[in-house]
Amino acid sequence: MKSDLDQLMANRSLDAIIVAGDEHANPPRYYLTNGAMVTGGYVLKKRGSDPIMVVNPMEIEEAAKSGLQVYSNNDFDWGALYKEMDGDLTKATVIFWKRLLLRIGVESGKIGVYGAGTINHYLELIRLVEAQYPEYQFVGEMGMSLFEEAYVTKDAAEISRIRSVAQRTSAVWQATWDFIADHRSEGETVVKEDGSPLTIGDVKHFVRRELLDRDLEDDAMIFAEGRDGGFPHSRGEADMPLKLGQPIVFDLFPRELGGGYFHDSTRTWSIGYATPEVEQAYNEVMDAFDVAVDNFRLNLPASRLQEAVQDYFESKGHPTTRSNPATTVGYVHSLGHGVGLNIHERPGIGHLSKDKLQAGNVISIEPGLYYPDRGFGVRVEDLCYVDATGNLISLTDFHKELVLPLKKH
Amino acid sequence: MKSDLDQLMANRSLDAIIVAGDEHANPPRYYLTNGAMVTGGYVLKKRGSDPIMVVNPMEIEEAAKSGLQVYSNNDFDWGALYKEMDGDLTKATVIFWKRLLLRIGVESGKIGVYGAGTINHYLELIRLVEAQYPEYQFVGEMGMSLFEEAYVTKDAAEISRIRSVAQRTSAVWQATWDFIADHRSEGETVVKEDGSPLTIGDVKHFVRRELLDRDLEDDAMIFAEGRDGGFPHSRGEADMPLKLGQPIVFDLFPRELGGGYFHDSTRTWSIGYATPEVEQAYNEVMDAFDVAVDNFRLNLPASRLQEAVQDYFESKGHPTTRSNPATTVGYVHSLGHGVGLNIHERPGIGHLSKDKLQAGNVISIEPGLYYPDRGFGVRVEDLCYVDATGNLISLTDFHKELVLPLKKH
Repeated sequence: MKSDLDQLMANRSLDAIIVAGDEHANPPRYYLTNGAMVTGGYVLKKRGSDPIMVVNPMEIEEAAKSGLQVYSNNDFDWGALYKEMDGDLTKATVIFWKRLLLRIGVESGKIGVYGAGTINHYLELIRLVEAQYPEYQFVGEMGMSLFEEAYVTKDAAEISRIRSVAQRTSAVWQATWDFIADHRSEGETVVKEDGSPLTIGDVKHFVRRELLDRDLEDDAMIFAEGRDGGFPHSRGEADMPLKLGQPIVFDLFPRELGGGYFHDSTRTWSIGYATPEVEQAYNEVMDAFDVAVDNFRLNLPASRLQEAVQDYFESKGHPTTRSNPATTVGYVHSLGHGVGLNIHERPGIGHLSKDKLQAGNVISIEPGLYYPDRGFGVRVEDLCYVDATGNLISLTDFHKELVLPLKKH
Repeated sequence: MKSDLDQLMANRSLDAIIVAGDEHANPPRYYLTNGAMVTGGYVLKKRGSDPIMVVNPMEIEEAAKSGLQVYSNNDFDWGALYKEMDGDLTKATVIFWKRLLLRIGVESGKIGVYGAGTINHYLELIRLVEAQYPEYQFVGEMGMSLFEEAYVTKDAAEISRIRSVAQRTSAVWQATWDFIADHRSEGETVVKEDGSPLTIGDVKHFVRRELLDRDLEDDAMIFAEGRDGGFPHSRGEADMPLKLGQPIVFDLFPRELGGGYFHDSTRTWSIGYATPEVEQAYNEVMDAFDVAVDNFRLNLPASRLQEAVQDYFESKGHPTTRSNPATTVGYVHSLGHGVGLNIHERPGIGHLSKDKLQAGNVISIEPGLYYPDRGFGVRVEDLCYVDATGNLISLTDFHKELVLPLKKH
């Protein structure tokens, strides 16, 4: 949780952190600034002190919405510095970083650098700052980083925001089901009033508008029909018509407009009817979903859930990435993952995961089966959170029917 | 241009480049993969060879759309490696990087690392790979980086895509003008049919739908009224009603849905009427726009355009960041910037810029005046390109009227 940051910094012997990069798709920055929409600038935090924000003077009004103490570049004589360096942005930025660190009272020490940004820029900048100011050591982190560790458990304010995204997403599920149902078929093709085919592009467009009307934004939804659904991350072809009896893997993971918290859920729909083969796979996936939920216990190693599901799928004769690490058919991915400001966070729920399942986790549960050569994939996913008493509670309030009947004939 | 990449690599003595990071908001990756929507993975290019793409097996179908040669992690025995490292992603990734470089035939040398991603991750990863494989030197870049240098001049395919975004954006300008005009006022407030105020949030929602209908996405448009418009980057308050005679700075910079090329343009509108003070500032900004266009010459230092505009504004008694680097009133920003896969690219058109104006540039021209204490800001911006013969041609096909009259009374 956010309140753990000082302890997490202490565990890493960090005297301070700098969060760099832009405002969009920059979770650590969003996390610290409560979503203030500011282009450029920095967030700095000395261990034991509140974070501060430093921005271009043009951005101070937006930055103030962060609730943090805000400084403008003018407070560091940026204009004069830039002029003094004869417009050499690199030289000026190196000196600017020193001034930033002095402002938060850090004259030397170990500085963690975080945020999402242009990799080449920060690689070189940090090399130059270290060369010019050897009193600082700048460090990165792989694996479970400071922020990723904080994100693992969500506080009440975060749960409430994710719940709101979940409710709005569930409404979009219902609206999309109703939208498709309100069509008719000609032969095996779903068609519009004028007899032209209803395409994946049409449905995605409808979904994006429905999301927008609820202040959500799409982050590249998957709506993959037939064989395409057999590749877990195929996004679907816009011009492909919807067909009866062709299962569609629809994975919808919108977030709050302008960046923010995600909700992740998936349904598989077969319009009009389902083939017996798809129906069987679907039932097995639904059973796997129940296996996961039934095996959930507070403080359980996350790998156990995946293993239980792998046991189940293997017992039904499906390859898994445990039985064959290179398989591209059967059950080919992890059971789920944390979701928050990132669509993929810890804990990871794979069979090699070292993570534990904790109170405050928000996790996806998403078993699936993939057989592109047999023309289908199936996946079902809810987003769940783990409450203080260890209950796994689904946030996704939408039914899991496979067959979507058309209302018109 | 993209065809310059080998020469640009040679200029930097780079034996190879690795482009890392995710698919969204990652311009170098988009540039090399033609917008393939793939989560994770890498693009690698040995100098003198075509780039290759390496992705999770789940992503191969999407990756194939890049037109590049695509490898899956399985081609590098990723699953076995990950297992061998007992699920230690960090250790496995370090070895994986070595295998990637060997695949493109680079056994040692200088490797440029590019892309947008999690800064802490790549800082640490590169430190570890260098420690384990000292035959490689990994380097970043600030300032005019390899890709930024390539982006400066657009090829015909890029111009054509930007032109399409421009046409669609111009249609949204017209639709939004018409939408607002189709309201009436009560007192000084613009109201809807039911008498409730038309708010900035209402207009932004309308604009986002209009963009979506044209396969464009908003990247945090500015719609800032009255005093807010006096802060160049204030985004505007959603619940603020539109008022007569209060100038609105409307800066719209959508891009192709799912990431891609931007178009950047700004208009200032005063609904019903404009105050004499705003009208005067507006006329001066329009004159400044003409000063910029009239002074444009092929191969001119970009700083000259900004200086010409600064000369003009200073002659009218306005502070500028040249006369006072710390000013927050008057003319407080550069005249413009390159636009492409990034909303801000080179050339920069500031008075300290070292860039030249070249054929193939796509640049914004956006003079403005800001007086928040007097309750207004004014900015006008078109996106222009420089054709092969050195003509500056506007891509923004929408009028620059200040006063937006309401049709209803």
